[in-house]
Amino acid sequence: MSAYTQLCQLADEITLLESTSATLGWDQETYMPEAALDYRAKQLGYLSGKSFALFTSKKFRLLLDQAEGEELSATGKANVREWRRQINRATKLSRKLVEDFSQVTTHAKAAWAEARKQSDFKTFAPHLEKILKLTRRKADLWGYAGEPYDALLDEYEPAATAAEISTLFDTLRPQLSALAKEAVARSAAVSATLLEGDYPIALQQQLNREVAASIGFDFDGGRIDTTAHPFCTRLGPKDQRLTTRYDERDFTSSLFGVLHEAGHGMYEQGLPADDYGLPSGTSVSLGIHESQSRLWENHVGRSQAFWEKWLPRAKEIFPALHVSVDEMVAAVNRAEYSFIRVEADEATYDMHIMLRFKIERLLLNRELKVKDVPQVWKAEFQDLFGLTPPDDARGCLQDIHWSMGGMGYFPTYTLGNLNAAQLFHAAREEATIRHDTDHANYASLLAWLQTRVHAHGSQLSPRELMAVATGEPTDAKWHLAHLRARFFRPV
Amino acid sequence: MSAYTQLCQLADEITLLESTSATLGWDQETYMPEAALDYRAKQLGYLSGKSFALFTSKKFRLLLDQAEGEELSATGKANVREWRRQINRATKLSRKLVEDFSQVTTHAKAAWAEARKQSDFKTFAPHLEKILKLTRRKADLWGYAGEPYDALLDEYEPAATAAEISTLFDTLRPQLSALAKEAVARSAAVSATLLEGDYPIALQQQLNREVAASIGFDFDGGRIDTTAHPFCTRLGPKDQRLTTRYDERDFTSSLFGVLHEAGHGMYEQGLPADDYGLPSGTSVSLGIHESQSRLWENHVGRSQAFWEKWLPRAKEIFPALHVSVDEMVAAVNRAEYSFIRVEADEATYDMHIMLRFKIERLLLNRELKVKDVPQVWKAEFQDLFGLTPPDDARGCLQDIHWSMGGMGYFPTYTLGNLNAAQLFHAAREEATIRHDTDHANYASLLAWLQTRVHAHGSQLSPRELMAVATGEPTDAKWHLAHLRARFFRPV
Repeated sequence: MSAYTQLCQLADEITLLESTSATLGWDQETYMPEAALDYRAKQLGYLSGKSFALFTSKKFRLLLDQAEGEELSATGKANVREWRRQINRATKLSRKLVEDFSQVTTHAKAAWAEARKQSDFKTFAPHLEKILKLTRRKADLWGYAGEPYDALLDEYEPAATAAEISTLFDTLRPQLSALAKEAVARSAAVSATLLEGDYPIALQQQLNREVAASIGFDFDGGRIDTTAHPFCTRLGPKDQRLTTRYDERDFTSSLFGVLHEAGHGMYEQGLPADDYGLPSGTSVSLGIHESQSRLWENHVGRSQAFWEKWLPRAKEIFPALHVSVDEMVAAVNRAEYSFIRVEADEATYDMHIMLRFKIERLLLNRELKVKDVPQVWKAEFQDLFGLTPPDDARGCLQDIHWSMGGMGYFPTYTLGNLNAAQLFHAAREEATIRHDTDHANYASLLAWLQTRVHAHGSQLSPRELMAVATGEPTDAKWHLAHLRARFFRPV
Repeated sequence: MSAYTQLCQLADEITLLESTSATLGWDQETYMPEAALDYRAKQLGYLSGKSFALFTSKKFRLLLDQAEGEELSATGKANVREWRRQINRATKLSRKLVEDFSQVTTHAKAAWAEARKQSDFKTFAPHLEKILKLTRRKADLWGYAGEPYDALLDEYEPAATAAEISTLFDTLRPQLSALAKEAVARSAAVSATLLEGDYPIALQQQLNREVAASIGFDFDGGRIDTTAHPFCTRLGPKDQRLTTRYDERDFTSSLFGVLHEAGHGMYEQGLPADDYGLPSGTSVSLGIHESQSRLWENHVGRSQAFWEKWLPRAKEIFPALHVSVDEMVAAVNRAEYSFIRVEADEATYDMHIMLRFKIERLLLNRELKVKDVPQVWKAEFQDLFGLTPPDDARGCLQDIHWSMGGMGYFPTYTLGNLNAAQLFHAAREEATIRHDTDHANYASLLAWLQTRVHAHGSQLSPRELMAVATGEPTDAKWHLAHLRARFFRPV
């Protein structure tokens, strides 16, 4: 048996452990009773220790050395290359550090949920302190040319750097800032309460499910559950779990949440199932992942064509809903300066990311203390948005990411926006897709994404993938063009 | 470190794996999408293989040999004794047999659900054939003095034998049969449709939750979900999952289901949490487990006192419910000959068990072929109940147990009924408990059960436990006395 085949078998075992952890993690965020937390942390720590030990075992490394000398298919070569990259990262961490990290973040997630509910940063601060300490330790062990941030970002967006992101953000900031200001001013004419009403959760679930199935999410191998902070997770090759939360006064909150998570979910459902557990069957980066969620949420879900199809159905489900298609489109594209990132409109969203990027970078470079995060957050928010968050729940406690140890992660959301605009533009260069999407039929668009993006797994780097799919590497111009068209279109 | 301490650590690791499997199993029966089945089977096969390998490892066995020579506390001695009993059983099976069994039953559970839906025994038969083959192989490897059934029964009810059960059933059958006939005749005066109405699931959930919390089920460490075939499972020391199913025309179906599963759940919540994963922190047998569910479902939930308290609340939740307490009590104690075991009343329930016991025993003794099960089921049913099931869904396909490989299991339900009656009688010998339960306050009853039953884990054998708790070993007289009092009480 070739070394490569043996590596694939080991990867299969590692994936059994990791997908099991994912199932326990999904349960923790959806159904698990509160008192179960300590033991769940212990289970997850145990499983992550086991899979880490297998991946970094002498056996795996020896086989990898051998496989690098074997004749392999293009896919085999890509898998070996990606394992090498990952093992170089993984073997620099001790098993104890990995287990500590898993235990600390399992507790931190629960502490964050409680701190956010009470809007009390102080109770979360000691957890963030621990996570920051372990995260800096990780960055130091991984090593970096520029700054600690680079070592972390590489996990989510291979080969990207904080300096690059910083340059990109410096370029985008004035254009976005001016665009947002103008979009917010124009949106003043659109009532913020236009869609306000009573939307029972069970009926929202009905509409969300129909929409998700219609754009191509496969419910035979997936489902939607309720959580505090929505996410999408893959528990097996045919087991895709979306989650959302509900606002009984606004059905579009969960609907756009589901479109977003279904975008992630359809990416994973489109990965080569036979390669499940191998790099070639795995998503390539968060910047590409987020491009899929953003594409379906914003480019599809906030379009005129989408609402021409779905508003009549929404009115059947919610008989009290009385708006025209134009009003609906205006309402779901209303721009305003607001506190919560996940509820932000397209015009202001990326400014939330710039804020978090700045704070994370300061924390990692020891230029900001954990205890000062709330105050710096407020000052920076004032500077960007002209508003000050009234409390930490609507400020630095709003996102789950830090509690999960997800630092170096946020910039990928803006990369996702840029990639989404570029991919949607490229797809619509094809006449059939342009015609279909203009009539709210998305099968040809999904097929294009499956071929151009999903099928590659992580055989190509994010940069290569974008070039192959669209003919050029990620460029901000398509996102800016999209925002201009969206917010300054002739009424 | 003593050998015993090292054994406890290994047991802790085994429990991490087993509780993880339990979590995956719970998800499979409640939320998992259909297409995910194959991979879930693979995950469960992997995990059960791992925990089996640890338990039967040379290391565990050497430590056990050593621990048997160490000075130990009473608990330590009981744990070592129980590990020895279990390892004697486990080491007789090959790892392959255990993994095969896990894979076969994971598929069989899904096939059973589908076969039951279609009422098509033929599609389930090949799965049952495989399970029977593997089960006979297990029995042969474990060995038995009397017959294969004994080897299986011992797993669920340590030291019980098929011959004993058979003798017990032969004694009970004529008394129960006469009692059932009379109870059914008397129940003819009670309308079968007295409670029929529209009971929305969400409102049933509200009532069920209030009742379960009120009798003492701890929701901080537990929850209730929906499934096809209700069960209760423990995913960690403070993580107790109950499941139920709903009939929108009859709210008592899910309510008694929840009382039943909450009885199981409170037993596990009452086990010594510090001993989680050790025999001393584990339930002792199914006959004791079932005594807890039956006690809360039947002795508590079908009593006059219970409904004097809960009928007014049920009427608030379901405004269309118009019955008196006496009518309610009569309705929930209505006896009739019916097809479905889990919906059977107390007067006829044990006859369902006798039927299954007979068929399982015939199958295991090669006196009955799998393909002939439906026909023999129907004939035996006719003999016991004077009725013939119209289809297999209401006949031999109604129960999940065989699909899970649970053979030698059903008699423990009747043992549970006997133990429940005996425990409830003994508890009510205490004046406070008699007074409290007569006023539908159950805290003192639960405390009694926690001290007399739950706290023992499996340190005592079922026989010893009953003797310690009630002053005598299991005796059918209390169950028969209870049924006579219930069905022939002065109206």
